[in-house]
Amino acid sequence: MSQPRIVVLGAGTAGLKAAARARRLLPTAAITVVDRRSFISYDPCGLPYFLGGDVPEVEDLRRTNYGAIRDADWFARTREIEVLCGYEVLGIDRDKRAVSLRAVADESRHMLMYDHLVYALGSRPHVPDGIRPGAAVACGGSPDAIAALGAGLRTGEVDHVAVLGAGLMGLEIAGVLRERWQIDVTLVEAASQVLPAVLDPEMARLVEGHLRRAGVTLRLDAAVTSATTEQGRAQVVLEGGETLAADRAVVALGVRPETSLAAATGLALGDARGLVVDANLRTSDPDILAAGDCIELVHHVTGAIGVLPMGSLASRQGRVAGDVLAGRDAEFGAVVGSLAVQAADLNAAATGLTEHAAREAGFAVESAWGVFNDRSVFHPEQQKLYLKVVYEEGCQRLVGLQAVGLGDVTKRVDVFASLLRQDAALEDLLDVEWCYSPPFNAALDPLHGLAAAALNACGDPVGQHAPCADVDRCTVVDVRTVAEFEGDEASAWPEVTNLPLEDLRGRLADLPDGDVVVVCAKGPRSVEAARLIVARRGGRVRYLAGGVEFARFLR
Amino acid sequence: MSQPRIVVLGAGTAGLKAAARARRLLPTAAITVVDRRSFISYDPCGLPYFLGGDVPEVEDLRRTNYGAIRDADWFARTREIEVLCGYEVLGIDRDKRAVSLRAVADESRHMLMYDHLVYALGSRPHVPDGIRPGAAVACGGSPDAIAALGAGLRTGEVDHVAVLGAGLMGLEIAGVLRERWQIDVTLVEAASQVLPAVLDPEMARLVEGHLRRAGVTLRLDAAVTSATTEQGRAQVVLEGGETLAADRAVVALGVRPETSLAAATGLALGDARGLVVDANLRTSDPDILAAGDCIELVHHVTGAIGVLPMGSLASRQGRVAGDVLAGRDAEFGAVVGSLAVQAADLNAAATGLTEHAAREAGFAVESAWGVFNDRSVFHPEQQKLYLKVVYEEGCQRLVGLQAVGLGDVTKRVDVFASLLRQDAALEDLLDVEWCYSPPFNAALDPLHGLAAAALNACGDPVGQHAPCADVDRCTVVDVRTVAEFEGDEASAWPEVTNLPLEDLRGRLADLPDGDVVVVCAKGPRSVEAARLIVARRGGRVRYLAGGVEFARFLR
Repeated sequence: MSQPRIVVLGAGTAGLKAAARARRLLPTAAITVVDRRSFISYDPCGLPYFLGGDVPEVEDLRRTNYGAIRDADWFARTREIEVLCGYEVLGIDRDKRAVSLRAVADESRHMLMYDHLVYALGSRPHVPDGIRPGAAVACGGSPDAIAALGAGLRTGEVDHVAVLGAGLMGLEIAGVLRERWQIDVTLVEAASQVLPAVLDPEMARLVEGHLRRAGVTLRLDAAVTSATTEQGRAQVVLEGGETLAADRAVVALGVRPETSLAAATGLALGDARGLVVDANLRTSDPDILAAGDCIELVHHVTGAIGVLPMGSLASRQGRVAGDVLAGRDAEFGAVVGSLAVQAADLNAAATGLTEHAAREAGFAVESAWGVFNDRSVFHPEQQKLYLKVVYEEGCQRLVGLQAVGLGDVTKRVDVFASLLRQDAALEDLLDVEWCYSPPFNAALDPLHGLAAAALNACGDPVGQHAPCADVDRCTVVDVRTVAEFEGDEASAWPEVTNLPLEDLRGRLADLPDGDVVVVCAKGPRSVEAARLIVARRGGRVRYLAGGVEFARFLR
Repeated sequence: MSQPRIVVLGAGTAGLKAAARARRLLPTAAITVVDRRSFISYDPCGLPYFLGGDVPEVEDLRRTNYGAIRDADWFARTREIEVLCGYEVLGIDRDKRAVSLRAVADESRHMLMYDHLVYALGSRPHVPDGIRPGAAVACGGSPDAIAALGAGLRTGEVDHVAVLGAGLMGLEIAGVLRERWQIDVTLVEAASQVLPAVLDPEMARLVEGHLRRAGVTLRLDAAVTSATTEQGRAQVVLEGGETLAADRAVVALGVRPETSLAAATGLALGDARGLVVDANLRTSDPDILAAGDCIELVHHVTGAIGVLPMGSLASRQGRVAGDVLAGRDAEFGAVVGSLAVQAADLNAAATGLTEHAAREAGFAVESAWGVFNDRSVFHPEQQKLYLKVVYEEGCQRLVGLQAVGLGDVTKRVDVFASLLRQDAALEDLLDVEWCYSPPFNAALDPLHGLAAAALNACGDPVGQHAPCADVDRCTVVDVRTVAEFEGDEASAWPEVTNLPLEDLRGRLADLPDGDVVVVCAKGPRSVEAARLIVARRGGRVRYLAGGVEFARFLR
């Protein structure tokens, strides 16, 4: 029996991974990968590190561990995979199982026959109509434009950059430009917060405060209507007419699945304009698999379908596609949407749904917040973590986690994600076994503390006051020590009484009358105090989740 | 109905946590905690950080986040828990439900009645008969002795320390003494490797090499028969008669459950001399709960029973005991034994069983090894991780993970632990969703690569050559680049041919005859090459798991 002819459209992460996996399992198959670009197989997530100077050349983003460049020659020599760079795909003839190509260099036409086709054309940067190339550089677009921006930074010619879009890529680039080059950076976002798809507003405030302190100018609620070039500089016009001038504009408004060819070919697309695939990554044509940013995925928590353009998922999908090409019954399952970003040294990560997204999806959810040390309190490298867990009312099934801080956020999010995929509940967070040693964690992991806080809040006579809720109109009892209270301007609530927890039992008479909100540094002491007040004095008593440490960012 | 009288024996992690949790759920219960020590509620895992100077005073190991000292007064004022320090428990009268006490200060006798008793006396350092106090300081024993050692380090009086026992605590202390104070440190261990309960020998070699390079003198296969003090210095005598002299000896030979009182009271003990408890932490007397280092636990992977004296588990058990005291049906489940240690800046962590322990427990297991970057290869802070996964033959169920390196080992171990608890298999590691961004991970997590390596090895015509196996007598084909090969003394196998993977397809004729072992830097290229050689030339071809990066530590 002759070996199959495999054609892969797209030499990005998913396509090349599928080709390499197929090669491993089918040593004598004919495997061809086609891409219209000549610069293939690089990691676009590395662009901020090139702009920041840690990566000297864009070319270094496609080096192997041992320094080889992953170009067409490398794939031919190490994998016996033919990569045709500079060939545009004109069409797919599904009846004849043929792909028609045009060479970018000389416009010559070619035809490739296939037994199996892998559609892995990925995504393209979303660049709205009013934004013109030139001074505006699109992330994920041509690496030449990014390289030119990098050169402008290195020569000092670029002194002010407007970053359009405060998503993952926009935040990373804004942070790195400011921290590394100390230039003016304006971060422009149409939503009223940064990372609107990743964080709830109060968690985003933590990131916004950090960026501002790092010197980034934030423009929220600022939709861009156009960006043009005038005398070599970028002119960004906002809704309402205001114009921002900068040396360059970087467009980081996300990506769209590259599926126009699929649509023209009659392959089924979903509502998010991604390819519809089954668990084996087969499209509506069983001879055609698809993988990477161009496909639609199932969200494990909601069951909803959508696109989630992440290199880590594309890579795993590539492996599955390669397995399926070789006749194996491999599957790519539902996803929980784990994401992480580092912006000016602040880490943020999330998995599952935000409270906002969960309500939009029709879930009845509750949330709990907490501020924790990421390792033992006495360890010199300990850092604060700000956490929010979202869970279903009643059954307390986990729905999502958001983590922000200078410390280790991804460990908590990665473990939480593995629980999400098991449909675990709050109680299950108490049973997680974590490595403990002071350099790595506290004796109880922050997620244990967060789950305990959430469980304590369920059906408790004392209620949680969300950190985002207005405390200024409440009667506040601050149960921190006098020393903690006095030095802290964040304690300046209009009506506040300082009654340290240590003294509270003997000073119940000093409590203000009526409803009170109890606050401490991070939350735990205020819970203790609130319980004590309810038990001994009664009344409506709440505690401020996350304490003053959280609230200081929201005031 | 009157509120219960709760007595807790032991003011360590488990006992105080149980008391605090009971107080939260039972606001008016009478709660008394008894301890013969006056220095309570400190984290013994912090002792290395005191010795290293990061923690100025031993007292700081019992401070809250906000700086308060957790002493008897603090528990009384904040929790309304009575802590009786300096009271020794003489006996438990289970019929009368009474505990008899003797005050250490004045030998006065007292009696405490209880409705519920919590036995949480923890563990005591294991100090063999021949080791005399004085110059020999036991970890986990009196904090005064540790404080005195700390003072000796700070004054420069102590210039050479012998650390007896290369377990978790011994390694941390040896590392910190050497790194922080630059004194002579001799680490003495009866086994032929460090961390014998945590790592297999070849993984331990990585740690041993690091400690030696840091300047620690390692004495393996060296059992201690006695340690005495002569003229203020420690004299450590080894089996065979050799004497080691040092200014001080630190005894870190592990701990034993403190259960002599339980035995005298007739409570059931198990084979490991720990208290037998049910899932609700009830001892053989349903009025008596037990928690912490003194109880026996079930291992999730083996179902075996044993002690696992870890502060993180004690803390979680304390919460469960508090819940049960309040009438809740809380349970403490089986454990997987996650552990972590930092020794002279090298991180090591493990969960589940080592290959050695798995075979001892009767499992038919296989292993796979790999060397990976802990984040994107182009990220300036990336570090290497050395990993070993142990899994069951056939069903490929996960059995254990060991991780060593300068990078983030605990994230991988913590996620792996959550899979272990689900009885996951190798395939499931491919489905884990990790946060990806260059500062936090590679696009494919190391565990994905490790699982792929293990799965590739299953039923493959090319076989894995374990990094610990002898390669010196094999014909070696090194498929790294010429530049990688030539600069590297670890390439100096007796019979070695350098044939870079990039050139291999055209140079198959240059291969040596007969059986070969293919090596590269970390493993992946040698797998590719070995497959190619088997397909094109045949013969018995294996690849060296973990590559030269791993092997260089074993030569």
